Amino acid sequence: MAEPKDDKRIAVDTVGSPDEIVAQLVGIHPADIAAALERLDSDAVTRVLYALDEETAADVLINLDEHVLAEVLEQLRPPEIAEFASELDSDDAADVIGLLDSSKRALVLDKLDENERAEVEGLLRYEVESAGGIMASELVYVNDDAKCQDAIEVVRGAAEELENIHYVYVTDRDRRLKGVLPLYKLVVARPDSRVSNVMDPDVVSASAEMDREDVASLFSKYDLVAMPVVDAGGVLVGRITVDDIIDVIQEEADEDISIMAGTSEEELHEESAMRVSRIRLPWLVVGALGGLASASVMNYYRLSLEKVLALAFFVPVITAMGGNVGLQTSTIIVRGMHSDGGFSGRAASRLLREWRVAITNAILLGGAVYSTVGFWLGDWRLASVVGGSLALVILVAATLGTVMPFTLKRIGIDPAVAQGPFVTTLNDIIGIMVYLGLASVLIERLG
Amino acid sequence: MAEPKDDKRIAVDTVGSPDEIVAQLVGIHPADIAAALERLDSDAVTRVLYALDEETAADVLINLDEHVLAEVLEQLRPPEIAEFASELDSDDAADVIGLLDSSKRALVLDKLDENERAEVEGLLRYEVESAGGIMASELVYVNDDAKCQDAIEVVRGAAEELENIHYVYVTDRDRRLKGVLPLYKLVVARPDSRVSNVMDPDVVSASAEMDREDVASLFSKYDLVAMPVVDAGGVLVGRITVDDIIDVIQEEADEDISIMAGTSEEELHEESAMRVSRIRLPWLVVGALGGLASASVMNYYRLSLEKVLALAFFVPVITAMGGNVGLQTSTIIVRGMHSDGGFSGRAASRLLREWRVAITNAILLGGAVYSTVGFWLGDWRLASVVGGSLALVILVAATLGTVMPFTLKRIGIDPAVAQGPFVTTLNDIIGIMVYLGLASVLIERLG
Repeated sequence: MAEPKDDKRIAVDTVGSPDEIVAQLVGIHPADIAAALERLDSDAVTRVLYALDEETAADVLINLDEHVLAEVLEQLRPPEIAEFASELDSDDAADVIGLLDSSKRALVLDKLDENERAEVEGLLRYEVESAGGIMASELVYVNDDAKCQDAIEVVRGAAEELENIHYVYVTDRDRRLKGVLPLYKLVVARPDSRVSNVMDPDVVSASAEMDREDVASLFSKYDLVAMPVVDAGGVLVGRITVDDIIDVIQEEADEDISIMAGTSEEELHEESAMRVSRIRLPWLVVGALGGLASASVMNYYRLSLEKVLALAFFVPVITAMGGNVGLQTSTIIVRGMHSDGGFSGRAASRLLREWRVAITNAILLGGAVYSTVGFWLGDWRLASVVGGSLALVILVAATLGTVMPFTLKRIGIDPAVAQGPFVTTLNDIIGIMVYLGLASVLIERLG
Repeated sequence: MAEPKDDKRIAVDTVGSPDEIVAQLVGIHPADIAAALERLDSDAVTRVLYALDEETAADVLINLDEHVLAEVLEQLRPPEIAEFASELDSDDAADVIGLLDSSKRALVLDKLDENERAEVEGLLRYEVESAGGIMASELVYVNDDAKCQDAIEVVRGAAEELENIHYVYVTDRDRRLKGVLPLYKLVVARPDSRVSNVMDPDVVSASAEMDREDVASLFSKYDLVAMPVVDAGGVLVGRITVDDIIDVIQEEADEDISIMAGTSEEELHEESAMRVSRIRLPWLVVGALGGLASASVMNYYRLSLEKVLALAFFVPVITAMGGNVGLQTSTIIVRGMHSDGGFSGRAASRLLREWRVAITNAILLGGAVYSTVGFWLGDWRLASVVGGSLALVILVAATLGTVMPFTLKRIGIDPAVAQGPFVTTLNDIIGIMVYLGLASVLIERLG
């Protein structure tokens, strides 16, 4: 392991000869080289990768951000990609090869040796978001009638290829998972004891089809550093390591935040203003269409607005409050669904809780706005319309914020969408309808 | 390790005798017992904890959600808390004892043996959000002149207390960190080799004061499962394990989302509507005050609105667009600050990029809204006011969304605040000022 450095201080000069390029990178950790290379164009990155020895180049490659990696892979020739891939663990090799288009992918697979090819092809068949999609095929396992010294030999054989061995898995003759032997137990066990007497027989394992978010929850709940993956018959097929789980957790969190903001992580790596604009525009168009729908609602109530122009002044209060209450509510509902012991299914009881909160807030805020408007404009009829409909809008927004995530989940859409611009826009329109509808009824009645 | 279960299927009957309570929990993993107990009141949880043996009870305790744990600790007596704490690793013991008020904390510390007490008191002195705040004091280390068989003896001695040993640290006589010996190397090394010949001399370590988010970035970058912590003199003082880093990453992500939504994770565990309301109200009051400020801006432009009522119709378009553009922009800026190779400091170049995107979107959306309003109401002067100020509002919101996170960061406030209700509200007010300001000038000029 090379010394970690602050990558911001590493400047890579890529115009020299291969030897000159390599000389400046000696002793720098591949993750730091990757971080420094991400600031260069893909031609320069390719020059550096070709200059490095294959093992280091492969380690740098897999540490590149996925978007940079995809660009660099376009520059690399299939034989070199295959050489780098064969230096990597199977899950990383599959991640790299999975980014290629199908014709280049076939060329690269062709250059791998038969075993590597079979492993990578096997891994590529799993869904990207499943346990199979993040597992590696390299396994350190022994038969359950083996002795501890046999297990040590297995570790010795594997240690040249793999760097992160923490467990030896124990299987029966058909490779069905029977237990796990943490290395610290192996270190202190008598060499001639049977592994079946030293191992933990209760293993937390994942099935290959399990959603990777559920796998991440298991890692978090049971404080694991690695987890074996089994097929439907209980046969050991791979293992997932905690570094990949950290990536899963970060990606899922980033995804949720991007949905809330109506954008995408992709654009972080996008320099073209046109393409960034294309990522953001759909959400802005939703907002614009919603705004125009609100305008047509106001147009519909034109007569009431002509009579009492001040009604229009409070439209921003109504939309801001509907938006904020809706977002607070949907966020708590979606968070609750994600967390352990989540309350999925108990929609009715959550709705009751949210209504109790909403009624409290509706009374307090409706009352405060009623008095403010009343004292400010001296028009207590207008004050009651604004205060009353604000209270009503808070209740409606809380209801939408609760019901939407449950509904989206039921129809198979990520409930996090309920925190995004679409639902906020819907809240705006409904809020204005409630407000002006109530106002026009009261104005007709009273005036 | 006991078999993991779906905790939703575990129903704990807490009315029986201690023996009856324990009988139904045999073979269930403490994390699953904890998840099942979280649905009970704290009296019932306390009965179960007293019924279990101390080691299991301590493991259940530390797996409880922090809010449930705090309630349960109020029920437990100091001597029992001390007994549970002495079963835990020092970081977990410090987490539990750190939740107590100062008088109860003193009583519990008094019951611990001298070593444990010193360890816990030492850990409690570190900032909660620092490396010291999440590290454990238990260390498996050997002197650099030791042989591998000595290291194996050290692991043997520690294995009874600690379950997650993956590395032996190597130090000099003054306990200054010199290297790390992964267990898989120890397993395959010759017993009489010197650890200094087998160890990795380049270790990624954290200083005790380092921010825990920076520690998490190091774990993620270098794919670590544990990291040693050193003091200012390079002396080994503790270690951080990856399970705590997973918690840090999840907490930080939840915190960001809560800030965006103007709420707090706390309320997930809060049943009282009044208290939930108190968490949410401050943000709603910000929105309400902002809405009233918008109302007074509209009141200021009352004459223009009286002349052209339809101007009011498009206020929701303006505020929705300002809010969405501001949120998209600030989210990308804040995400970029968080990610590896983040662009902190390069505010000016980000602003240029955001302006290019904003100009593209402003032309497209301004143009689309201009034509829609023109064809809809047949009033092309109104259409140009709405379309033109929409374009301007998009530019202003993109500027605010870029400048705010950098400004907040500079004055020491979490830049994520720029994604919250406060900045959206500010965008609303500024948007309406721009829109009606421009409109009133044009109306005076043209008609």
